[in-house]
Amino acid sequence: MPFEFDRDTAVTPLGDGAWSAEISTGWNIGTIPNGGYLTAVALSAVGRELPHPDPLTVTSHYLGRVNSGAPATIEVEVLRRGRTLSTACARLLQDGRERLRMLATYGDLDASEGPTFVTAAPPPMPPPDGCVRNEGGLAALELHHRVDARLEPSVAGGAVGEPVGRPETGGWIRFADGRPPDLLSLAFFADAFPPTVLNLDRFGWVPTIELTIHFRAKPAPGWLRAWFISRFLVESHVEEDGEIWDSEGNLVALSRQLARILPRS
Amino acid sequence: MPFEFDRDTAVTPLGDGAWSAEISTGWNIGTIPNGGYLTAVALSAVGRELPHPDPLTVTSHYLGRVNSGAPATIEVEVLRRGRTLSTACARLLQDGRERLRMLATYGDLDASEGPTFVTAAPPPMPPPDGCVRNEGGLAALELHHRVDARLEPSVAGGAVGEPVGRPETGGWIRFADGRPPDLLSLAFFADAFPPTVLNLDRFGWVPTIELTIHFRAKPAPGWLRAWFISRFLVESHVEEDGEIWDSEGNLVALSRQLARILPRS
Repeated sequence: MPFEFDRDTAVTPLGDGAWSAEISTGWNIGTIPNGGYLTAVALSAVGRELPHPDPLTVTSHYLGRVNSGAPATIEVEVLRRGRTLSTACARLLQDGRERLRMLATYGDLDASEGPTFVTAAPPPMPPPDGCVRNEGGLAALELHHRVDARLEPSVAGGAVGEPVGRPETGGWIRFADGRPPDLLSLAFFADAFPPTVLNLDRFGWVPTIELTIHFRAKPAPGWLRAWFISRFLVESHVEEDGEIWDSEGNLVALSRQLARILPRS
Repeated sequence: MPFEFDRDTAVTPLGDGAWSAEISTGWNIGTIPNGGYLTAVALSAVGRELPHPDPLTVTSHYLGRVNSGAPATIEVEVLRRGRTLSTACARLLQDGRERLRMLATYGDLDASEGPTFVTAAPPPMPPPDGCVRNEGGLAALELHHRVDARLEPSVAGGAVGEPVGRPETGGWIRFADGRPPDLLSLAFFADAFPPTVLNLDRFGWVPTIELTIHFRAKPAPGWLRAWFISRFLVESHVEEDGEIWDSEGNLVALSRQLARILPRS
């Protein structure tokens, strides 16, 4: 039986760069599919069109509501097929209307070589059993049946309506069904923690305007640990900066999104 | 007489979302136009097509060499015209070949309201006269006739072939002809400092794969101060995280690019 994430990001060729996908309800936040999951679905199609194996950088702009439990079409336009890099633009459509536009550049991480100089270390935190299981908090979040997420205790409050006073979040995460992490899944994990700003106040919906992920290394099997911080919340606009590390202590992804806190209705 | 930056980012309508521009030699790094300048040229066309006044987030993927002192065409596709947000995709072409693909979402910063919570402060540095004038260092950089850039003394070495040992750079910057900064110009300033990695080693060319900028506030007149840092140089791939602050101490832009150090030929 395939893993849930593989089944729910599978794409079927329609020809001429078009692919069909089924947007699962299993990765919903409330009634809306998680934005990282949608980016992974679109990347799944892009990866089938480009000659290089690994995403290096992807940016998604979220244009409109995506319905889950419904089909979608992904149209991929290849912009470059170079020796070391290839680039594509992708559109995700439902009912003929575009809901997401993406740009992605691929390469081959195994073929990379040259200087290395890292000045950062994984965020310190207790082991997973010393963290707080994220059950989805106030909302019924479908995706918490699909992931096993443990929030670092000092930032766990926001998810259950008890803001801790600083716009940060983080902890451990892995798929509930044992699927090992890979590059594609990092697009999902980069958007799978509660919004940082829930640790400031009981805000309502915080939709993503744009999400960019840099894929820096293939993750080793096991738990991922992640940390997200917002330094600048200005008149409802907020960036969320994330880093994801693998079980061997290597950085595997950097993410940044621009989001907007909507007034509570 | 118009300011240099306005003259060199001007676009002329060709109809059907297409615009023509003249890529100036004045913003060259060596013989190549600065990537932030090219993003500003493309944004100049995008801004003419979208109903909202202010860029909020833009991502450019650099696909191929752009020739300066030559015309270019920018083709803008509007993806969304919403109440508070609008989004476009743009392609920059020369001789019919695409050289840059961009996604940008616009809004209205003056109409933003809601919660504000900022935990960061402008990077400390001596006043401009206590910093080191960046004359372009080893390379003859055309753009140093266009900007007045002063490097913070502890990170000034890399630009003149004397790496200081940590991958950071920053300082003060403004246009040489007195043009005040605005949002469009931040796309240029976000890429106008020497690469951070020149403070690690005497690397050669460090081309940008992808550049993303969040525009967070309209800059006040006067000097901008900026800081750029790379925490993860891994097998030649490196992110460069930037922040730009205005003369009143407000953050005006966050930038991140993914770049790749090429072997010295």
